[in-house]
Amino acid sequence: MCELLAMSANTPTDLCFSFTGLTRRGGETGPHKDGWGVAFYEGKGVRNFHDADASASSRIAEVVQTHPIKSEVAICHIRQANVGDICLANTHPFTRELWGRYWVFAHNGQISDFAPEPGFYEPVGTTDSEALFCDMLNHLRRHCDRHTPTAEVVQRLVSLSEDYARQGVFNLLLSNGDWLFTYCSTKMASITRRAPFGPARLKDADMMVDFESETTPDDIVSVIVTEPLTSDETWDIYQPGEWRLWRKGEIAMQKTE
Amino acid sequence: MCELLAMSANTPTDLCFSFTGLTRRGGETGPHKDGWGVAFYEGKGVRNFHDADASASSRIAEVVQTHPIKSEVAICHIRQANVGDICLANTHPFTRELWGRYWVFAHNGQISDFAPEPGFYEPVGTTDSEALFCDMLNHLRRHCDRHTPTAEVVQRLVSLSEDYARQGVFNLLLSNGDWLFTYCSTKMASITRRAPFGPARLKDADMMVDFESETTPDDIVSVIVTEPLTSDETWDIYQPGEWRLWRKGEIAMQKTE
Repeated sequence: MCELLAMSANTPTDLCFSFTGLTRRGGETGPHKDGWGVAFYEGKGVRNFHDADASASSRIAEVVQTHPIKSEVAICHIRQANVGDICLANTHPFTRELWGRYWVFAHNGQISDFAPEPGFYEPVGTTDSEALFCDMLNHLRRHCDRHTPTAEVVQRLVSLSEDYARQGVFNLLLSNGDWLFTYCSTKMASITRRAPFGPARLKDADMMVDFESETTPDDIVSVIVTEPLTSDETWDIYQPGEWRLWRKGEIAMQKTE
Repeated sequence: MCELLAMSANTPTDLCFSFTGLTRRGGETGPHKDGWGVAFYEGKGVRNFHDADASASSRIAEVVQTHPIKSEVAICHIRQANVGDICLANTHPFTRELWGRYWVFAHNGQISDFAPEPGFYEPVGTTDSEALFCDMLNHLRRHCDRHTPTAEVVQRLVSLSEDYARQGVFNLLLSNGDWLFTYCSTKMASITRRAPFGPARLKDADMMVDFESETTPDDIVSVIVTEPLTSDETWDIYQPGEWRLWRKGEIAMQKTE
């Protein structure tokens, strides 16, 4: 399977600390060595890094770990291949343009024999994940437009996610650069850091950070992952079937009973 | 304006030498300091690097210069902004998916007040270049499909390019990963390197390479640029209105009288 990491923040923030923890699991503290990728939104633009090599030993991952790229929304994925060869075209996150915005998608899980309806967006690689992404965007394009209220778009994303989750495992990160939609089929956890900031220690690397020295009192930064990254903080665990829409570091909408 | 660089090769080849020469023009030997980007095809996948900073001093450009990324088709652009702010969303090359392939586009020139017909693909940023790219893909989607012979697709690209070139300056690099289409409105030059390979020296940096030590006798590698990169080789200069379609390092189709 794979592991996911996302960030939503109210001010451009770098992902160096969390990215360092996650990428260790790509061949060092974990088996997810079949490629990795990360997308950083910067305004409406997206900066992508992809590599079909193991993240723990990738030269490009090392640059992303040490060169602070500041973003309000970022999505990252490390891959342990199940469906689809190990190659660049099968490396998440995937990006498409819809309504003049880049949409970025990463998926943990597997849906065997997923057979989408034909549509405008088509996968380039051979993963079930990219086929699911294209199916979601084709659905949005058929049923919504750029003026559809976010609540309605999100309701459609929830229905689609529930449908996919009935067919297999579907833990999802999806963003249009404005908001970040997260859906938990089997595993997902989040943490929101805000003043007063404290220190945190990675599980997967001998690395500690004191967020107070790196932030201002107004900063709000949330990190969403499939497996918690730090050993000394309390992560908020999603229930199966739970979803949260993040915007500027906070939950803007979520599942209610 | 901007400068363009592309490569077409019959075997995965790195772009370190040419990329080093070009990126010096981004703030050091040239004024193209308003961002840079490069796309490397790897099979059907694409590896992108974009930066809104000057390429001559970019940490990420330094990695691309020194870390050999091997590709059969690559497209690179350094920007001196005219239309559109300096920001990531306005940084070439641009990418869209069409017929299950990634298409990559970079443009040198300017077409003032370009007003495309609405279509499926829309620009994310505010450059005339991205609007032209979307217009080309919308045209292909309306008039062709995935089974259209390449010669017919190319003829449409030529007609579109001629039409754009009548409205302004339109030097173009466009690839679908299989072939590389190049159109010269005002300036373009190419060089094809094959056995027996010799040395070459960059104009913009104190760097020489002996291609013989880096290649096999069967390699064929062509480099296409808006301004020649080396001082001791003979570049083949395009005439205004000339186009060439490159595939595996060689010209597969070109303008005939």
